[in-house]
Amino acid sequence: MRRGHFVMADTGWPGCAKSLKGVILDMCGVLYDSGEGDGVAIPGSIEAVRKLKESDLQLRFCTNETQATRERFVAKLQRLGFDISASEVFPPAPAAIAVLKERSLRPHLLVHDGLLPEFDGVDKTNPNCVIIGDAAEHFSYQNLNEAFRVLIGLEKPVLFSLGQGKYYKETDGLKLDVGVYMKALEYACDLKAEVIGKPSPTFFQSVLSDMGLQSHEVCQHRTHSKTCCSLNSSDNNVVFMSEWALFRKCHNGELTRSDLVAFYHDLSLSTRLGLVTISYSDYK
Amino acid sequence: MRRGHFVMADTGWPGCAKSLKGVILDMCGVLYDSGEGDGVAIPGSIEAVRKLKESDLQLRFCTNETQATRERFVAKLQRLGFDISASEVFPPAPAAIAVLKERSLRPHLLVHDGLLPEFDGVDKTNPNCVIIGDAAEHFSYQNLNEAFRVLIGLEKPVLFSLGQGKYYKETDGLKLDVGVYMKALEYACDLKAEVIGKPSPTFFQSVLSDMGLQSHEVCQHRTHSKTCCSLNSSDNNVVFMSEWALFRKCHNGELTRSDLVAFYHDLSLSTRLGLVTISYSDYK
Repeated sequence: MRRGHFVMADTGWPGCAKSLKGVILDMCGVLYDSGEGDGVAIPGSIEAVRKLKESDLQLRFCTNETQATRERFVAKLQRLGFDISASEVFPPAPAAIAVLKERSLRPHLLVHDGLLPEFDGVDKTNPNCVIIGDAAEHFSYQNLNEAFRVLIGLEKPVLFSLGQGKYYKETDGLKLDVGVYMKALEYACDLKAEVIGKPSPTFFQSVLSDMGLQSHEVCQHRTHSKTCCSLNSSDNNVVFMSEWALFRKCHNGELTRSDLVAFYHDLSLSTRLGLVTISYSDYK
Repeated sequence: MRRGHFVMADTGWPGCAKSLKGVILDMCGVLYDSGEGDGVAIPGSIEAVRKLKESDLQLRFCTNETQATRERFVAKLQRLGFDISASEVFPPAPAAIAVLKERSLRPHLLVHDGLLPEFDGVDKTNPNCVIIGDAAEHFSYQNLNEAFRVLIGLEKPVLFSLGQGKYYKETDGLKLDVGVYMKALEYACDLKAEVIGKPSPTFFQSVLSDMGLQSHEVCQHRTHSKTCCSLNSSDNNVVFMSEWALFRKCHNGELTRSDLVAFYHDLSLSTRLGLVTISYSDYK
């Protein structure tokens, strides 16, 4: 039995899907798994992206990837076999740069070396804000102290966090994500960071603007409440949440990696789907 | 004008002080300033401690110092000129070890190298909790990931934090303190740490037990609400808070280092004082 198909046939989802005009997909953990080198594509995902592109649905990709520039990141996905171009991919850094320009801010950066070229054209002298991304090994005691000193020295400290993830899995184990260090600096400086990236409503709005669509016309990759709330009208929340609830129901509360693969399999067989993909890492 | 004296004469503090039987003093920022080598004693503080010892007040010292064993820490204070013995000093580590024994817990340690000998006799195999102290340079990305993995791998994760300070000043600038990393791990693991050290009520209770006194018989070194609430009855809170309010009033809301020095000066001239000292770093 193809479980994904079964789900959709049983819930009237295809009917609801007729009003959809676009799809936003997450990337890491949804299209591929990170790890050594480029990581690996999740079976079925390359074909799923191809199928979506052949449909009349608009397609964009949203990621909180902040360890590389958009160009390098997209090149990796292309090497894995995905038909994806840079203009379709929305990471936090370009969105952050737009905010800096708009508010005349000069950042102190605590980010991964791979992301630095993205900020090449940005004035970083005499910083009046701090931006943190997933800096990985650069989250040293020294670098955190330095970012803290910049913040505490400002009359009105402004901290931007490129995402708010808690942790992620790599081949050598779980790693703390940027959100954890965001919380650390928030506590130290008694402030609230501005999150740029998922699940920030502003971030999703910039993707919607690029598609020329309204939130109710778009199907988002994730189905948990937080992300849905930030993107969708209450009507669509119901759709997404019930879809997720159904998934749980069908599999006794357990969503496994094989469910995701089966779902991609169904997608690649279908001609027109208002697709919900599930981020495995959120629901395992 | 000796300002400290002025304060006390004006408020009826000496009257209230008659019921006091003991004093608990903070150490770093109150008795001495940390920095290169042993740091430096705050002018007047050595004499103030001597005077208190000559009085009929019981005296204990409370510290969140977790970069050295109690013995090494006290030896430093003695080198600075203080008449202090190890049995009078209460740092978090010995209190933490008592908790471990009581609850049959085996810790994974993320602490300063200097503190490790304190845990020599503690079983650390197959850890079922994590203890963090002010690990300074040991707060690396790798070490935090490791502590996180231990916690996330436990059925019921238990995190002990030796203090919850945000930051402190050293001669080469501000440094992030253990509380910041506590918040980071709390967020990552979705848990609430158990704080051992100031301003934990349990911690102060252990000091009171050692003195054989009740909270209303003791005058604490700090006068801000959080610490007072954790130690004192509501009646005494009023005394402490008004004392602090008066300090602010007398100095137009600004408490400076010279105020603290002047206060010590007054103390060393007085024969019997229910003393409140102020942690300079909290109120500058």
